Amino acid sequence: MIDLAVCELISVGTEILLGDILNTDAQFLSQELAKMGISVMHQSTVGDNAERLTKLLEEASQRSDIIILSGGLGPTPDDITKEVCCEFFKKKMFLHEESLEKMKAFFAERKREMPENNIKQAMLPEGCVVFRNDNGTAPGLAMEKDGVHLLLLPGPPRELKPMFFESAVPYLKQFSNKTIISHNIRTFGIGESAMAEKINDLFDMQNPTVAPYAKDGEALLRVTAMADSEEQAEKMCRPVIDEIKSRLGDVVYGVDYTCIEEAVVELLREKKLRVATAESCTGGFIAKRITNVSGSSEIFECGIVSYSNRIKNEVLGVSADDLERYGAVSETVARQMAEGALKVSGADIAVSVTGIAGPNGDGSGKPVGLSYIGLADKNNSWVTELKTGRTDRDYNRYVNASNALNMIRMYVRNEK
Amino acid sequence: MIDLAVCELISVGTEILLGDILNTDAQFLSQELAKMGISVMHQSTVGDNAERLTKLLEEASQRSDIIILSGGLGPTPDDITKEVCCEFFKKKMFLHEESLEKMKAFFAERKREMPENNIKQAMLPEGCVVFRNDNGTAPGLAMEKDGVHLLLLPGPPRELKPMFFESAVPYLKQFSNKTIISHNIRTFGIGESAMAEKINDLFDMQNPTVAPYAKDGEALLRVTAMADSEEQAEKMCRPVIDEIKSRLGDVVYGVDYTCIEEAVVELLREKKLRVATAESCTGGFIAKRITNVSGSSEIFECGIVSYSNRIKNEVLGVSADDLERYGAVSETVARQMAEGALKVSGADIAVSVTGIAGPNGDGSGKPVGLSYIGLADKNNSWVTELKTGRTDRDYNRYVNASNALNMIRMYVRNEK
Repeated sequence: MIDLAVCELISVGTEILLGDILNTDAQFLSQELAKMGISVMHQSTVGDNAERLTKLLEEASQRSDIIILSGGLGPTPDDITKEVCCEFFKKKMFLHEESLEKMKAFFAERKREMPENNIKQAMLPEGCVVFRNDNGTAPGLAMEKDGVHLLLLPGPPRELKPMFFESAVPYLKQFSNKTIISHNIRTFGIGESAMAEKINDLFDMQNPTVAPYAKDGEALLRVTAMADSEEQAEKMCRPVIDEIKSRLGDVVYGVDYTCIEEAVVELLREKKLRVATAESCTGGFIAKRITNVSGSSEIFECGIVSYSNRIKNEVLGVSADDLERYGAVSETVARQMAEGALKVSGADIAVSVTGIAGPNGDGSGKPVGLSYIGLADKNNSWVTELKTGRTDRDYNRYVNASNALNMIRMYVRNEK
Repeated sequence: MIDLAVCELISVGTEILLGDILNTDAQFLSQELAKMGISVMHQSTVGDNAERLTKLLEEASQRSDIIILSGGLGPTPDDITKEVCCEFFKKKMFLHEESLEKMKAFFAERKREMPENNIKQAMLPEGCVVFRNDNGTAPGLAMEKDGVHLLLLPGPPRELKPMFFESAVPYLKQFSNKTIISHNIRTFGIGESAMAEKINDLFDMQNPTVAPYAKDGEALLRVTAMADSEEQAEKMCRPVIDEIKSRLGDVVYGVDYTCIEEAVVELLREKKLRVATAESCTGGFIAKRITNVSGSSEIFECGIVSYSNRIKNEVLGVSADDLERYGAVSETVARQMAEGALKVSGADIAVSVTGIAGPNGDGSGKPVGLSYIGLADKNNSWVTELKTGRTDRDYNRYVNASNALNMIRMYVRNEK
């Protein structure tokens, strides 16, 4: 085992140099390698250019034990990563029948002819370890020469991520002698600095460490421990996580959830409650986020996107008079939308959102970023007013949906 | 004036190597430099480490005329970019009074004491061009030696972006004598290699160039021309775009759209048609994508997320017998969902999706990734079967929604 393997990342793609795509692969790989205790010392990007890529491989192989390349494995002539790497390592290529068969099946399933171009994706260097690609046609691979390891992964994140976990991680285990474990404590309804004030002293800890960061408009805390074994690292994290949860209280919606909708779906499943949605400005975003979660069919009954006033009235039964008097963006309408969705769906609870997402106003003089979020059960209904003060449509829609989800969470938590 | 200036970017920051932050600066700078006709040939990231940064500067200065560094200009001891660059160029530093005064004012305004640490931010290399920072305390700068230009910018995007436009762009004008214009031709319903076969010969053109790439599961073509003026570059692109459109035909949904929903909303607005949606497995995603587009309220009437069979029957009027006989994921149900949404909403057309998004099956024995997409108008209805062959829930939902949007597009195109 190499004691401290040095790793570097090379992204190949002219589209990255032109700024057409954001290099999220480099961040993903760096994060995952850090978790394994493998240090990334360089990240580089070059275009689809054999000369410059070869030069970079020369430099990289002088200073790193592991070089992970992403991109340039596609079927078109400008995809050259594999060919350049084989040339650099002086490895011959052979036709990998299994990859070819998989590729043929891939096209057959889609009832499409396999283009001739694709055959080159099944050509692989002799002696390599093949990484299966279940999400595209280009297999990945690892090869070694004189102690330098090249790993080639496809560029599209949908293909790179599963391949990394399924094939690259097992391959890289040989370089990893420490285990790093991280847990994310997720909160809703507290700002980063207000949160920091409550736990300032914990930021000075060395192992585990506690670090705040912001993600998707939420404040997040990351607890990270390094140890010889996973078990030991877990044991070090646990008391710190408990301490943070007890100091922050209700604003913590969970540990290691990727998003609030996951927590909401789990809570609803636990309490066996079914939910419905009535959305205006969020346009289906709440329903979409709930149904992102696998298994949500158990708790999600129905969603109504009542974009026009006519639908608010005819489908949800919002009073036409009240729509006229108070306007579509009002407490009254939010309440009636939630009550209407409850009735139409027969669910246990219903949430609603009506607001002005922007970038432009609705002509009523009400500010962009204003919204009303309603929740109804069989006996009661509640409405919250929200003002983001922003005109960014995507942001407002996201934050409105998050607040509606949080309203469900708080309701279910308080249910006995 | 240098005829073809070669530029490269160096991001300095251990937090990027750890994957804690996404390197959006590199994308921003690459995009803006491309617009100025300055070619970025390398992007690199190193940590806050003097030795590795010096080594990288040596390599970079061999191959590039302009090196733009971002990050590592902060007040803490691990911020070393400026110090390393001065050492590399053998430039002495002096105290820049104006920057010191600005910094003092910055802290005074915030009623905070200026930490001693910050003074180092006002130390600048002799003979440099100072870039003012109106959004933070670290000034940027440019310096030159033997024809190699180093530009130092702060890392935080809200400081880097304005400084780039206000100070770096004027400085870089000396290298830019060409204008580059790019247009993206967006398609739906054709794979990258099938598309390549139809236009293979165009990939050999030199100016404009034609390059394929994949984005969000769609194949995309980028046409790029370089010329002395914007007008001339546009003139060079136009016939190539027309040629591609005529060869690819119906699969092209537009030029320079960011996504298919933009094209769909525009088509519906043109034809003054209002649409409704009935969604099962996509759970509101189609409605969400349509209403992402500002101005969609003119064409979007109503969306029903009929997740349970009961709602399919009670709200959309899908026959309970047919749900029983054919199952929820069937051509018959997709058709009745679209017809039901049309009736409930009073819209001109309605689309529907019912499918198995995964990761698990629905117990019916039908494969994950199977879906039926329906479209109804007052006189007719159509259903398409789709098999993605994948179990990735996010992917299946996205592709189902995209196909439903494309079905609207094809319908509206064929409407006279």
